[in-house]
Amino acid sequence: MTRLAETLVSALRDVTGSAPVPLHAPEFKGQEWAYLKECLDSTFVSSVGQFVDRFEDDLAVYTGARHAVAVMNGTAALHVALLLAGVRPGDEVLVPALTFIATANAVCYCNAVPHFVDSDSVSLGVNAEKLRAYLVSNTKTVNGQCVNRLSGRVIRALVPMHTFGHPCDMDALLSLADDFGLMLVEDAAESLGSLYHGRHTGTFGLVGTLSFNGNKTITTGGGGALLINDPDLARRAKHITTTARQPHGWEFSHDEVGFNYRMPNINAALGCAQLERLPVMLADKRNLFLRYQKALQGVPGIRLFSEPDGCQSNYWLQTILIDSEYAAERDELLDATNKAGIMTRPVWRLMHRLSPFTAFPRMDLSGAEDLERRVINIPSSPVLGWRSE
Amino acid sequence: MTRLAETLVSALRDVTGSAPVPLHAPEFKGQEWAYLKECLDSTFVSSVGQFVDRFEDDLAVYTGARHAVAVMNGTAALHVALLLAGVRPGDEVLVPALTFIATANAVCYCNAVPHFVDSDSVSLGVNAEKLRAYLVSNTKTVNGQCVNRLSGRVIRALVPMHTFGHPCDMDALLSLADDFGLMLVEDAAESLGSLYHGRHTGTFGLVGTLSFNGNKTITTGGGGALLINDPDLARRAKHITTTARQPHGWEFSHDEVGFNYRMPNINAALGCAQLERLPVMLADKRNLFLRYQKALQGVPGIRLFSEPDGCQSNYWLQTILIDSEYAAERDELLDATNKAGIMTRPVWRLMHRLSPFTAFPRMDLSGAEDLERRVINIPSSPVLGWRSE
Repeated sequence: MTRLAETLVSALRDVTGSAPVPLHAPEFKGQEWAYLKECLDSTFVSSVGQFVDRFEDDLAVYTGARHAVAVMNGTAALHVALLLAGVRPGDEVLVPALTFIATANAVCYCNAVPHFVDSDSVSLGVNAEKLRAYLVSNTKTVNGQCVNRLSGRVIRALVPMHTFGHPCDMDALLSLADDFGLMLVEDAAESLGSLYHGRHTGTFGLVGTLSFNGNKTITTGGGGALLINDPDLARRAKHITTTARQPHGWEFSHDEVGFNYRMPNINAALGCAQLERLPVMLADKRNLFLRYQKALQGVPGIRLFSEPDGCQSNYWLQTILIDSEYAAERDELLDATNKAGIMTRPVWRLMHRLSPFTAFPRMDLSGAEDLERRVINIPSSPVLGWRSE
Repeated sequence: MTRLAETLVSALRDVTGSAPVPLHAPEFKGQEWAYLKECLDSTFVSSVGQFVDRFEDDLAVYTGARHAVAVMNGTAALHVALLLAGVRPGDEVLVPALTFIATANAVCYCNAVPHFVDSDSVSLGVNAEKLRAYLVSNTKTVNGQCVNRLSGRVIRALVPMHTFGHPCDMDALLSLADDFGLMLVEDAAESLGSLYHGRHTGTFGLVGTLSFNGNKTITTGGGGALLINDPDLARRAKHITTTARQPHGWEFSHDEVGFNYRMPNINAALGCAQLERLPVMLADKRNLFLRYQKALQGVPGIRLFSEPDGCQSNYWLQTILIDSEYAAERDELLDATNKAGIMTRPVWRLMHRLSPFTAFPRMDLSGAEDLERRVINIPSSPVLGWRSE
């Protein structure tokens, strides 16, 4: 074991204790059991039920979006968000190379082409300045649409992702989208509870998407949601996620090829209980950041990633950045920590390196590639925030 | 109210009682509570968990399929089944006009074309004899593939659906698929517990699909499954429904554009409990059929639909067929029963009449059109099977 690995394991143990710790464990300390029981007692466990309506209302109130539409997971939310943004077969959609595969897969589900863009080390999200320069050089405007000079395809939308809960530079990205005629869809799968200049992530673009997978800050088992301000678009989101069935007592008539993406009531029941405890869990996660900050300040060669200026991060996954001169030790650090029972992981393999996506267009990705070499996520469960020291 | 409507309401009330009754209500009388609690206590509510594995094993044992893969709903199961069957963009897939829209939507998700086929009044499923004559006249064999003479497209697969739980004529359909080189995918969304000559529906074709929506015989809130005998195909089903991620402790590498179609553990927990009580619920539903048979035998102008010869139906939705001379009264019967608090409904609007599908190819559909005029589903909850008379 290298000296850095030894020091890191020891510093992390000061925070996590000596028992094995997962990367992120959910917490069920509120009304989860009561709401699930209520759900079973009512027999409304499926796609129609009061918890679905309530979860959507609660999400809208919490995030400040005018409407929220609950769906079965974050991937489904992204798929629908892109359709709402008017992404058509053969379009290109700008997505970060540094993201979970769902962002790129959703583009493929629309028979569109992901076009990979770079990330910066301040937000871990899309590098707006670099992207602007790239679009200036590589696109032209045709009939008000942004067209890729090389492929000739329309670039329809931009999908920034708030990596590990840290907000992207939304001002710069909104201005970019505006200047180049791109629809902005925010992938806020990881950033429930994260604010950019006081406003909730996922509410800036045309549509924002959330995920409530088991490893997220709050979970519904599997689940996701769309955040939408425009009421017509919200109605349309509900329509195409519920098989595009036209309301009627008994008739089954559907006016387009829709999707069966509804969140079941039983999953929404869990979500309602989880959302009630979100403020407490966010406080715990912020405290965990402070504990890590203290424990890691004496460790040379690494830096604990902290929220960008003007932003409040949910600190979904706590992140360390290895200094460039130690980047070659990344796998050694991953090995040593995991062997010590401290679950850690590198960032996802970058999208342009995955076999289904190697042929797709991309800009220079040196920023993302640098982060790929240097990022490690460390245990982030809220329960670790208050462990006695 | 017509005389037939009056007589029908009165006969149905003899079975359902005077309180309002839904079309189909789920029943949670087994270990549902216990398993959900176990799930929360373990914190494994999401896509990895022992209940998912157990539910898949239990489904395989119950149906006799070698493998079962749990997914988030029946629509997702159909989508994956068609991909496993090799359906490619531009292919045609034979699906009944008389089905729920999911069957046809799944074809569209593959960028393939639904080609609508007729149903018979013995099974309510695909009319094999009529379809054979149609294929003889309208297709040719090119390189071992069945090609639609008119469109020039390959007809890749046939997707019979076991309507309301009643098994299709599988011998005839298997022979048809074999003779015309069609992959057979069984949409068994409605027929969990239904047997064709002693063998469970959904296990005859290459792949079968189940649904556990809230209105089905057993429910997981939302859920579905694939039944597969071939182990390689089952592995592939698991792979593409779990984002095509390659197994590794921390690396996120994906080798194709997969789907996030996993069933969460919390939904599988419900499924395990429900499946334990399936035999009891099937017995109740069969008894309900007998009660309806008795109550309706004196009603002229209608006939209670019973399982085809050699088949054991789950009687998911009890069905009456209006005699042709009374078919014009269908809406009157629907109105009268629903107004009396007895929830009834007609068959789904036939696929070729729905706006997204009007331009798609179809054979003569006079059988399905006749059934559309004459079919009414009546309350079918298992609890009605044993109501004191």
